[in-house]
Amino acid sequence: MGNYKGSLLGSVNPDLASERQTASFSVEKLTAWLDGGTEHTRLRRAVVEAIECDPVFSRENQYFESQNERYEAAVRKAVHLQKKMDEMGWTENGPEFKALSGDLAFLLHRIFTRSISMLGSDQQIAKWIPLATQYQLIGSYAQTELGHGTYLQGLETTAVFDITTQEFVLNTPNISAMKWWPGDMGRSATHTVVFAQLYVNGKCYGLHPFIVQIRSLQDHSLCPGITAGDIGPKMNFEHIDNGYLMLQNVRVPRENMLSKFCEVQPDGTYVRRGSQKINYFTMTTVRISLILDEVVIPLMKACTIAIRYSVVRRQSKLKPGEQEAKILDYQTQQEKLLPQLAAAYAFYFISDYLQELFDRGYREIQRKNFDMLPELHAFSSGFKAMVTQYSTSAVEICLRACGGHGYSLLSGLPSLYTKIVASCIYEGENTILFLQTARFLIKCFMAASTGQPVPPSVTYLAAVTPEKCPAKNKLDFLSPDIYTEAYQHMAARLINSTAAKLQDLVQSGVKKHDAWNQCTVQLAQAAKAHCHYITVKNFAETVEKLETQPGIQKIMKHLCDLFALHGIFSNAGVFLHDGYISGAQMDMVTASYLDLLAVIRKDAVPLVDAFDFTDKTLNSALGSYDGQVYQRLYEWAQKSPTNKQISPAYERYLKPLLHKTLSKL
Amino acid sequence: MGNYKGSLLGSVNPDLASERQTASFSVEKLTAWLDGGTEHTRLRRAVVEAIECDPVFSRENQYFESQNERYEAAVRKAVHLQKKMDEMGWTENGPEFKALSGDLAFLLHRIFTRSISMLGSDQQIAKWIPLATQYQLIGSYAQTELGHGTYLQGLETTAVFDITTQEFVLNTPNISAMKWWPGDMGRSATHTVVFAQLYVNGKCYGLHPFIVQIRSLQDHSLCPGITAGDIGPKMNFEHIDNGYLMLQNVRVPRENMLSKFCEVQPDGTYVRRGSQKINYFTMTTVRISLILDEVVIPLMKACTIAIRYSVVRRQSKLKPGEQEAKILDYQTQQEKLLPQLAAAYAFYFISDYLQELFDRGYREIQRKNFDMLPELHAFSSGFKAMVTQYSTSAVEICLRACGGHGYSLLSGLPSLYTKIVASCIYEGENTILFLQTARFLIKCFMAASTGQPVPPSVTYLAAVTPEKCPAKNKLDFLSPDIYTEAYQHMAARLINSTAAKLQDLVQSGVKKHDAWNQCTVQLAQAAKAHCHYITVKNFAETVEKLETQPGIQKIMKHLCDLFALHGIFSNAGVFLHDGYISGAQMDMVTASYLDLLAVIRKDAVPLVDAFDFTDKTLNSALGSYDGQVYQRLYEWAQKSPTNKQISPAYERYLKPLLHKTLSKL
Repeated sequence: MGNYKGSLLGSVNPDLASERQTASFSVEKLTAWLDGGTEHTRLRRAVVEAIECDPVFSRENQYFESQNERYEAAVRKAVHLQKKMDEMGWTENGPEFKALSGDLAFLLHRIFTRSISMLGSDQQIAKWIPLATQYQLIGSYAQTELGHGTYLQGLETTAVFDITTQEFVLNTPNISAMKWWPGDMGRSATHTVVFAQLYVNGKCYGLHPFIVQIRSLQDHSLCPGITAGDIGPKMNFEHIDNGYLMLQNVRVPRENMLSKFCEVQPDGTYVRRGSQKINYFTMTTVRISLILDEVVIPLMKACTIAIRYSVVRRQSKLKPGEQEAKILDYQTQQEKLLPQLAAAYAFYFISDYLQELFDRGYREIQRKNFDMLPELHAFSSGFKAMVTQYSTSAVEICLRACGGHGYSLLSGLPSLYTKIVASCIYEGENTILFLQTARFLIKCFMAASTGQPVPPSVTYLAAVTPEKCPAKNKLDFLSPDIYTEAYQHMAARLINSTAAKLQDLVQSGVKKHDAWNQCTVQLAQAAKAHCHYITVKNFAETVEKLETQPGIQKIMKHLCDLFALHGIFSNAGVFLHDGYISGAQMDMVTASYLDLLAVIRKDAVPLVDAFDFTDKTLNSALGSYDGQVYQRLYEWAQKSPTNKQISPAYERYLKPLLHKTLSKL
Repeated sequence: MGNYKGSLLGSVNPDLASERQTASFSVEKLTAWLDGGTEHTRLRRAVVEAIECDPVFSRENQYFESQNERYEAAVRKAVHLQKKMDEMGWTENGPEFKALSGDLAFLLHRIFTRSISMLGSDQQIAKWIPLATQYQLIGSYAQTELGHGTYLQGLETTAVFDITTQEFVLNTPNISAMKWWPGDMGRSATHTVVFAQLYVNGKCYGLHPFIVQIRSLQDHSLCPGITAGDIGPKMNFEHIDNGYLMLQNVRVPRENMLSKFCEVQPDGTYVRRGSQKINYFTMTTVRISLILDEVVIPLMKACTIAIRYSVVRRQSKLKPGEQEAKILDYQTQQEKLLPQLAAAYAFYFISDYLQELFDRGYREIQRKNFDMLPELHAFSSGFKAMVTQYSTSAVEICLRACGGHGYSLLSGLPSLYTKIVASCIYEGENTILFLQTARFLIKCFMAASTGQPVPPSVTYLAAVTPEKCPAKNKLDFLSPDIYTEAYQHMAARLINSTAAKLQDLVQSGVKKHDAWNQCTVQLAQAAKAHCHYITVKNFAETVEKLETQPGIQKIMKHLCDLFALHGIFSNAGVFLHDGYISGAQMDMVTASYLDLLAVIRKDAVPLVDAFDFTDKTLNSALGSYDGQVYQRLYEWAQKSPTNKQISPAYERYLKPLLHKTLSKL
């Protein structure tokens, strides 16, 4: 019984230790490769260490805190981080935000800053950015309204140009137009970028961004005409003060409309430089950057926790007479967790791919060439939707795969889940995003079919593929050519057949918008298939480039195979539908898929160790490096406020009843 | 702007009102039919009203409370409910528990009571039940251990019979044997039923239940040898004090082993009356009763909230030039929500079916006939797993279908989700439960193939069905015969092919337990398919019996069709695999499925109105009967503690920074 007195923490559980002795590759090398080089690893670790040594950043009581306490901690940490950044020379895009992900206030402040940098004129940048950088004002980004989300054209807030005073007059015309959800707005922000319909001389010019002060810099009271507050408790994000905002005749000077691309001149002339769509470009960039930070990294954490726990937890017997088995030795547990691990790697790589695509596009935009905007928009939309949806379900699988203990906040998994599920909604609701991608794909398909040029990423839509998958045995399905082609065929078929349905409907007299609506279930499916295909293809290409590191290449190849075959196994219908893959071939896929589970099982722990999360980052009683799961659960539980306070419920309600029993027992 | 001053609450939003004018059936009649008659409806409503008029049961601040506050409220409500029950003559199985679901402490106390009633001798029942019924003791049910869950044989707690004192001596031999998770144990319970390995004269007789006192009735302090406390915060269930318990040489008298079916006599003789498996029977009954109360009703609530919101929320345009459309008019939104609505009805009916099966079985067991135990165990396991898994995903879909507002606690959806997800884990982890069902099915399949008798529910395993689905057009797929047969064929094929794989492996020399493990992914799939088939069949039979109520029959038939076709559409692979359904037929399924969405769309609101939840029961800003969504969100948000307290964060961290800016702007 002495075991649970704390003596074991830090000494590695032997069941976990044994997993690390048989790795087929060097964990350190894999980590360095994922980081982009050993120097990056060293720097990242130094930052993480500096942060974790600092008591201000402690997460120790996180799972016990109220919404008010979490908000206060998040502000404290954000302000302290800024100080540390100045001291240490850390940069905005360094690893420190990742290390503190989910703990910091003022994330929307960063988007406020980014909007001004992207959409503001040089004077506007010079005026606002230095103040924002030092938190000498707190910004927010007020786009979404109570009654309006992804459909930006429907936003109701108005900004009317008053030529006599050279001001814009902002108003919230009714309750559904109230700004609702913007982070940092409920209690913190002094300023915000308000998106409003611009009116000049009675004419509406559509949505434009305006810098509006909402709270006094002197005493933080609300400015005249402003009603604002916190929208209350959410499923997570308790550290963020998501807020509401109503504007009643709020006046801002003409210079407060962000004017790099659009401007109202003193005489009321409206000038546009470039596409109006550029005003949405902030969202495109946010969608791409959130994939890694808000989705892939949480998924990696969930995999780390669930996989480490699954080699410590023993349950039931695989062989009669033996001791209880590690749950990761059960095929069903492998089938839950290992595909999620493969997906974490797949999405890590696709996020790189998207970042490159975006960087290229951004360079063009800086040169006022907007040609890539549609492709960037389509890709950022579809991949944001696919990766968030897949990863949310993956984290949920990890949580449930840990049984009851996964459900304890102390496992760290509930907070990962409740955070990642929000990513399916924010920055564009996923179904709507898929449909935007679908619209792009249908257009490209039509263009490609008539021989017009399309972006390289979608030329496959017009490519000729064989009608039947050529695989002859289960090993053939471990060939990237075979499965990548299957995905390509499937994605092209879904887009093709949905385009045909659309055309049939229109030709039979259905109006275009009705026809579109009647195809949306299939259009969304087609868009997802496209993103799935590109993800598989990109994974296979990433593996191919690993020639110089054969140990890592081998295990990455297994993961790539697993990701691809899991997708075919789980979406068998779309591959079987036209007979491209036959029932007999599907049995081969299943066999290879299940075989792979047993292969990757052996390296499962090293594969999550390579993500290189510290215990403090994971903050999980189940997922710590030493695997002392039960002891840690017990020790952490004792810190719970429920164990520190004798509930008034006893004196008030129970004592009178229980005392009646004394004489009877 | 006057609109959001509270004046509109209670007057029905016109978008929602219009949905109620076109119902194809009588909502009142459907409610009465679901309740089992108008008299039941009247009684249920009377109870709900009595509860909701009572301020002690108010849920008003629920979303703002801490774990300590929620626990205290739950105790207060449970004690008060007992008082009301005595006053009003309400019974244990009446609707009041449903009306208060999720609010009450002492749910495990009920299982404590049930265990004693089922497994206790007449004397034990006479001694303990009256005290328990009046909360003159608080019971718990201590089965799960820190290191052991569903695999009961692995539990480590010991109970050694000491013949000299005629006592059992209970011990927790090490940390993983600590009882962990039992509800009501962390802070409330005075007694608990402890499951422990029974040893008499050095021989282990397996798991048995013992009544153990853990806290003083005098002052609630822990009894000698007892260590106990609360396990801390969870994803939900904050109102319940899930606890831990360690036992060190705790002695209980011989009479405290529950002894209806097993007994240790004074001389140490062990006597068994009936199957030892009967000790697990409490869990079988709990699994069946939780389906309705903890799973189907929450799903119905989620559907009500999401569907009402989806006709109030308008977003984007279906037709150019028109006003923004109700989001339920989009095919993608229908495809998210309406299948979940159909599932809610399907599971409501299957829960009836299971209850009848169980009642029949229980009558037999009372007569010491244990023949039905395997079937009851298999059904309670498989359906618990299938319904909880499906419904969890359904509630999540409802939550996400409400966009950002679904993510606010005020929508009521996060608490439904975080509660229902636990049902996938408690009372048996779902994968393990599916595998228990699979074991039963494989046995029955083997028996049926060799002509031996099997329970009527599984005779289909040996039935001959056509090799191809006979449907010729999309309307054929609206025939229950056609789709029920497709499900039957598919389930039988999956069980059949997995049995064949098992046999092949064994014949090729793989050891039996290894072969089993290598088939478990497919076995779990087969078990799920079996339950899905029975659910579809039972739905179709329920519809058939509705002859006397044609209006209700018609809409129920649509829902049944939708449930069935949604299942084929979403699991296309298993129907296409052997060509039973061809690609062309799958297109017909898809067409019929999408057509049905538009049909049921018209009755969506009446179909959820018929569930007859009051606003106070739903406790949702999105789902209230009047549909005043935005106004309610705004009013409720203002009650949040985050709006009542000026955060110390401003003075401490922000003010010094912001004051620097004063001179600059």
